[in-house]
Amino acid sequence: MKTNRVKVEIITIGDEILIGQIVDTNSAWMAMELNKRGFELAQITSVHDETDHIVESLNMALKRADVILFTGGIGPTNDDITKQTLSTYFNSKLVFNESVLQNINRLFSSRPGFKMNDLTRAQAMVPDNCTVIQNPVGTAPVMWFEKEGKVIVSMPGVPYEMKHAMSNEIIPRLQSHFNTPVLLHKTILVYGFPESTLALKIADWENDLPEFIGLAYLPNSGIIKLRLSGLSDDMLVLEFSMNQQIDKLSQLLGSAIVGYEDIPIEQIVGNILIEQGKMVATAESCTGGNIAHSFTSIPGSSNFYKGSLVAYSNDVKINILQVSADEIEENGAVSQIVVEQMATGVRKLLKSDVAIATSGIAGPGGGTVDKPVGTVWIAVCSEDILLSREFHFGSLREQNIIRATQASILMLKEILEYK
Amino acid sequence: MKTNRVKVEIITIGDEILIGQIVDTNSAWMAMELNKRGFELAQITSVHDETDHIVESLNMALKRADVILFTGGIGPTNDDITKQTLSTYFNSKLVFNESVLQNINRLFSSRPGFKMNDLTRAQAMVPDNCTVIQNPVGTAPVMWFEKEGKVIVSMPGVPYEMKHAMSNEIIPRLQSHFNTPVLLHKTILVYGFPESTLALKIADWENDLPEFIGLAYLPNSGIIKLRLSGLSDDMLVLEFSMNQQIDKLSQLLGSAIVGYEDIPIEQIVGNILIEQGKMVATAESCTGGNIAHSFTSIPGSSNFYKGSLVAYSNDVKINILQVSADEIEENGAVSQIVVEQMATGVRKLLKSDVAIATSGIAGPGGGTVDKPVGTVWIAVCSEDILLSREFHFGSLREQNIIRATQASILMLKEILEYK
Repeated sequence: MKTNRVKVEIITIGDEILIGQIVDTNSAWMAMELNKRGFELAQITSVHDETDHIVESLNMALKRADVILFTGGIGPTNDDITKQTLSTYFNSKLVFNESVLQNINRLFSSRPGFKMNDLTRAQAMVPDNCTVIQNPVGTAPVMWFEKEGKVIVSMPGVPYEMKHAMSNEIIPRLQSHFNTPVLLHKTILVYGFPESTLALKIADWENDLPEFIGLAYLPNSGIIKLRLSGLSDDMLVLEFSMNQQIDKLSQLLGSAIVGYEDIPIEQIVGNILIEQGKMVATAESCTGGNIAHSFTSIPGSSNFYKGSLVAYSNDVKINILQVSADEIEENGAVSQIVVEQMATGVRKLLKSDVAIATSGIAGPGGGTVDKPVGTVWIAVCSEDILLSREFHFGSLREQNIIRATQASILMLKEILEYK
Repeated sequence: MKTNRVKVEIITIGDEILIGQIVDTNSAWMAMELNKRGFELAQITSVHDETDHIVESLNMALKRADVILFTGGIGPTNDDITKQTLSTYFNSKLVFNESVLQNINRLFSSRPGFKMNDLTRAQAMVPDNCTVIQNPVGTAPVMWFEKEGKVIVSMPGVPYEMKHAMSNEIIPRLQSHFNTPVLLHKTILVYGFPESTLALKIADWENDLPEFIGLAYLPNSGIIKLRLSGLSDDMLVLEFSMNQQIDKLSQLLGSAIVGYEDIPIEQIVGNILIEQGKMVATAESCTGGNIAHSFTSIPGSSNFYKGSLVAYSNDVKINILQVSADEIEENGAVSQIVVEQMATGVRKLLKSDVAIATSGIAGPGGGTVDKPVGTVWIAVCSEDILLSREFHFGSLREQNIIRATQASILMLKEILEYK
């Protein structure tokens, strides 16, 4: 699978990642985009704003890869030294670039109160032997260097500036500069097994995979993504062969497969809702709006998502969702009857076709002997089905919120697909 | 600031990060924890499950750092080869370890339906010349090697297993193995300036900082974190000096400073609410539950957070929040009057002291010439204040949701602090 693939490395520059102030979501996004297009990402390296260390990383990366992508370290403030370092490395002089200045002027004129200053103006100075690529959404330009057939690009670290540059300029230019082969990925989402059990269950199938199809396990809070990757000159043959393997896998795993696309489960369920012409509403206690947030993160979610009542306090459950105060008194808010009443209540209140309700103890406080932290009741309902289940996730608040969100969305899928 | 600090490097192993299937949140968390304790993280490297590349990275890292922390690549499935690679590197034999097997047995016995299999059992084989550290929350043990005064640790990549091992075993052992100096951080949150404007505004102050205090800019969607770091033998002197600098900065920046702690603004505002004995409710259209999710991600948020109505459709705004249908007809849902009625409506509905409402066009669809994507109206209210503002964020859905969430929480802060 490694034959002929163009090797890329990412070097991120700046203290932010290394002191743990930000998570490196940039590299994850870049990795995904590069991979989809058949580039092989060989290494990601994060280093400080330190000339020697930057140069050492670049030298090492050039030994292994064809393309080096730098992100970050080119902002206007004092601790950003990447431009100077690359300029010296490539024996360039910094020269004034009129079009970069014009871009900065344009950006500042559209934001009242933001004034050009010397630090911003200095961004118009660029190395004289690189190709300057305009950055229409930020002040720092993209710099494209070439050396002995290899390509070195420096781009901003601000996520939307980096994404804009990658999608519109860098990837298209890399594809035409190298002649990238085509790679095909298929992802199968599996729910309900630990990784090792799944591995044994599909061991024979895995061993029988043809040589040109690779398999990776990608566990992600309860869902395991099985990712098949194939590289071939003949796209039709590859596609046919991969589909054949996926059919075999479906027979092996049955309903444990919850999706055949590498998209979030909320989107899979959203698509089913749209297909069935149904709207969903949610009543969230322990998930605290995270189900709503998951659904509404999807563009176009207003076509299937009606709204949510985040019922964090009991009086909201009672007064607005019409949950019985006596049942809360008797069984507690985290109970089957309460979560069922929340689901039917929100379905009626928001006039939706189907509904989800959650009530649980996310932690760290609030646990009891009977109902320890991680206990979550989930109910889903439609006009004629009401399904409720108790879960015991774990001790971590964040994890409990994510797991309960995931489990609820999959329970909704179940009743939508019920025949 | 670099003197005497123990240098650490992280090497993450596995395809997941390099094909962009997961974001490397592990390294961010480790970086933060190491940094807080005075370790210097010199580099993060992500490589594939490939023996040669792992060995090359280890060799390079050993040239620069005192401690190498490996995460990932030690699961039970076939593509995990780290243990074998390290075993060969350190000239070890794999031997059976009874206590690892007991730990695996204990874990499996507590999860009905999970059965021990050969892949899991193989995790009890460990190199004979490393210190085996038990992993009570997972099946793969932690391995601690020492070589020429340097420490090399291999730990699982599953986030909560890694965190458990780092917090309870690895960091305490590193602190006693090396003699780590004490580092002090203070973070100031600034809102409302672009980075370059802020940099010029505080340039004189920055230049006057004493040598033992360093400054870093950490921009994060609208909020810039200014992080002061100091290293000293005398903690009291350092603390006094840092506080003095922060006082000067406060005079310079005034109300642009929205916080003095490295905690999320929703927690800052949550603390003010608790202090004032007030509860907040939210009515969310374009933010789709993200404000609710932000508040409820904070442990103990039930002490200040009442609930949210995610009013994604107009009939929910009209029927439940009592927004006037005529006003929606006349001005559109994204308008000052509608968002104000949403805020006062949800305050009454959920019987809270204060309320937030948002209505906007998150994108990518739904924009018009008058109200392009990124237009957001936000209102906050208490018993006697009603404040509303129009914002124009940008073209990216995700970014618009985050920015609108942030702006609303800061507007709530404004009215809470209004005198």
